[in-house]
Amino acid sequence: MTRDDRGVTPQGEDFSAWYNELVTKAQLVDRGPAKGTMVIRPYGYRLWELLQSELDRRIKDTGHDNAYFPLLIPESYLSREAEHVEGFSPELAVVTHAGGKELEEPLIVRPTSETVVGEMMAKWISSHRDLPLLLNQWANVVRWELRPRMFLRTTEFLWQEGHTAHADEADAMRETMLALDMYTEVARDIAAIPVVPGEKTPGERFAGAKGTFTIEGMMRDGKALQAGTSHYMGTNFAKAFDIRYTSAAGRLELCHTTSWGMSTRMIGGVIMTHGDDKGLVLPPRLAPYQVVIVPIGRGEQGARTSEAARELAGRLRSAGVRAHVDDRDQLSPGFRFNDWELRGVPIRLELGPRELETGSALMARRLGEEGKQAITLADAPRLLPGILDDFQDFLLRRATEFRDAHTTVTDSWDAFATAVASGWALASHCGDPACEADIKAKTAATPRCVPLDGPPATSTCVHCDGGAAYGKRVIFGRAY
Amino acid sequence: MTRDDRGVTPQGEDFSAWYNELVTKAQLVDRGPAKGTMVIRPYGYRLWELLQSELDRRIKDTGHDNAYFPLLIPESYLSREAEHVEGFSPELAVVTHAGGKELEEPLIVRPTSETVVGEMMAKWISSHRDLPLLLNQWANVVRWELRPRMFLRTTEFLWQEGHTAHADEADAMRETMLALDMYTEVARDIAAIPVVPGEKTPGERFAGAKGTFTIEGMMRDGKALQAGTSHYMGTNFAKAFDIRYTSAAGRLELCHTTSWGMSTRMIGGVIMTHGDDKGLVLPPRLAPYQVVIVPIGRGEQGARTSEAARELAGRLRSAGVRAHVDDRDQLSPGFRFNDWELRGVPIRLELGPRELETGSALMARRLGEEGKQAITLADAPRLLPGILDDFQDFLLRRATEFRDAHTTVTDSWDAFATAVASGWALASHCGDPACEADIKAKTAATPRCVPLDGPPATSTCVHCDGGAAYGKRVIFGRAY
Ligand SMILES: [Zn+2]
Ligand SMILES: [Zn+2]
Repeated sequence: MTRDDRGVTPQGEDFSAWYNELVTKAQLVDRGPAKGTMVIRPYGYRLWELLQSELDRRIKDTGHDNAYFPLLIPESYLSREAEHVEGFSPELAVVTHAGGKELEEPLIVRPTSETVVGEMMAKWISSHRDLPLLLNQWANVVRWELRPRMFLRTTEFLWQEGHTAHADEADAMRETMLALDMYTEVARDIAAIPVVPGEKTPGERFAGAKGTFTIEGMMRDGKALQAGTSHYMGTNFAKAFDIRYTSAAGRLELCHTTSWGMSTRMIGGVIMTHGDDKGLVLPPRLAPYQVVIVPIGRGEQGARTSEAARELAGRLRSAGVRAHVDDRDQLSPGFRFNDWELRGVPIRLELGPRELETGSALMARRLGEEGKQAITLADAPRLLPGILDDFQDFLLRRATEFRDAHTTVTDSWDAFATAVASGWALASHCGDPACEADIKAKTAATPRCVPLDGPPATSTCVHCDGGAAYGKRVIFGRAY
Repeated sequence: MTRDDRGVTPQGEDFSAWYNELVTKAQLVDRGPAKGTMVIRPYGYRLWELLQSELDRRIKDTGHDNAYFPLLIPESYLSREAEHVEGFSPELAVVTHAGGKELEEPLIVRPTSETVVGEMMAKWISSHRDLPLLLNQWANVVRWELRPRMFLRTTEFLWQEGHTAHADEADAMRETMLALDMYTEVARDIAAIPVVPGEKTPGERFAGAKGTFTIEGMMRDGKALQAGTSHYMGTNFAKAFDIRYTSAAGRLELCHTTSWGMSTRMIGGVIMTHGDDKGLVLPPRLAPYQVVIVPIGRGEQGARTSEAARELAGRLRSAGVRAHVDDRDQLSPGFRFNDWELRGVPIRLELGPRELETGSALMARRLGEEGKQAITLADAPRLLPGILDDFQDFLLRRATEFRDAHTTVTDSWDAFATAVASGWALASHCGDPACEADIKAKTAATPRCVPLDGPPATSTCVHCDGGAAYGKRVIFGRAY
């Protein structure tokens, strides 16, 4: 492999090529054999495991139990909720043969699990004492993709899907917002993505939902990524699957349900929020390796620096730092430095014979103005956790500044059209789906969300003559 | 629900009915809508998560990386290894339609992932420096089941599958045995199942393997359960998928591969190794709740015992004990006691007004001769970890004694036939598959394994006139 093979197309030249080359060259994923599927390689999967453990802990701490529902769902289940089946039909993968025979009823490979969960909830809930029922599952789902993009839109992806049932709308809405809060927190505090939580406009709702909430992040090309959604279903699924309970007063009532999901798509968000022309930039809290130590030197000298690197890595691990030693001595130091920059490791420690003599290493941050600095080997385990925290904060600050610099509050159509070409517009909108479609046709921008905590609308739609809806401004942007 | 609804058929009356009733009544699983599938309910899934975390830690500590490979595999992949496709064909679920169209090539829902992993290994391995390649994935797989049993044989199940590639047979065999050791340790130390590790006879090998190793546990009806397997593939898959490397000497060589798996079937093993006529008996290391505190009393008194129970549970959790308070005051204490016995909780603490006055609780172990004992609330967090360890040891000792009492070393055919009716026979065998089939037809027993550490064979087969193979005796038994 030559040096040139390892570089990636600059973001400014072709952001999409940059992304596609990077996910493969950084060894996050590989193309799977079936159309639109991906193989998640160890480096990419470790990112997912770290995100998963953060989210799973919050899900459990808020009283949800994990469970597992079957992959294969009878076709008839999906048809029970009319909007749901209409929304998902074009994306379904269908098992027609099994055990050497044609099946009497085809089975759908789950695109999401509301239907089978609904069927079981109906069986498990009888009294108000059974509520709320708070479930979550970690699973794979399949939605056929015509234009797949690794992590962002793949035929199969991994996610968690929360499914809960409640006695009334108020309790179900509390849950819907609780899930959205968890997502906002994980995105911000773990992935360093300053997402905006908000509500989808009616035209962008989940199939079968009464309200869909979302977190939207801004990528470095100015486009939006929907990174997690939380849905209030009203009694739609309860009616379709007969999920009822006897109230304290003895009446039979319909449950109010919710569902919410975050997926491997988040990894795409991490890549496009922080990455640059040298490659990935990983937030320390998600980085498989937070610190990579590169020992330098040949022969006897190389053996000594390698040993010192291993010793340091052991002390760093004891201090809770995920450290890795790259002692591939068949590769030049420069090649290894570039490799770990490509793979986004937050901190690199270079350990040559000269450094070893002075009991220090040269520290290079993946981003920032600091340049290389000496760090003493003795102090490194005490100092690095704080340096990693600072780097995490720096990434969030940088992403927030980028988002704010590319967001325009505007009431003029021209400024709107300019804004969404390179970022977001915060504008008043009439709420009419036809007007949304017209805006999309002209600018490729769609309404991302009505931010929960956003500025008020003016009286008139930015595009048509209609009056503004929602009371607040809507974020418009091009989106993944 | 009346008291009678909650009981289960005694094991001695109908072991199979006992099992089927118990898995549902203990709220471990429910039947899924598609034939042979299961819904794993929170109590069952927590068992799986605890097992998973123990196994995952060992997998990582021994240098394996988790990854994820696609669910859907082109049909042609399976045919590349002839024995493999023959072994799995009758069990496959096939996706023929997706995205609203008929597919050009049908996709198989993975029954196991050797083929797709093999394809990727060929891409990722080029030099001896890339070896060994040590991968694992946690995933769902589908194998169509005509006679499903919850956890034991379900159309879909959850498992981990390790896949590794090595430079030579010696290294691959070391890996095969390392995986077997991990399984033996997790079964014994975590699930308290005294499994016997051994090699499968050629007729019982995995489809495409050169050697299959297994851990076999004895259930309380005397039948054997295969609870994990580890396969040495030789170069079979390397040939089929072109997995080659350039050696240090510059020659192109075939890799030697392994695969190994442990699944949700283990939960069935836990149930049938320890359970009794009152219900589940869970080893503390796998129990979702290790200690359940049942506060007793009505009105004012009930409020006081409930509060003391919650306070105690908090202190137990701080001491690392998984504690749960059952304050369902609409249910009688006796009903709640029975419920947690059915659900197999190792230790129950009863906390009534009288106990509270003396600052103690009544402790009942799920099994054993001790009877109820008082334990002071102040000492409980200090004492319970040790009491739980003792209970864990007790279960392993009891299961080992049961296994040994139901295992007969014999050279006589009559004694063999008697032994396998209620347990295992350790006998000399010729190794001829026709002789194995004949034994199965007469006794329903099959060769479970040649124990790694078992007694030597005599010169003659226990059933035919052939000479004994393997050098060691073979375990025969009826099996799940
Ligand atoms: Zn408008
Ligand atoms: Zn024989």
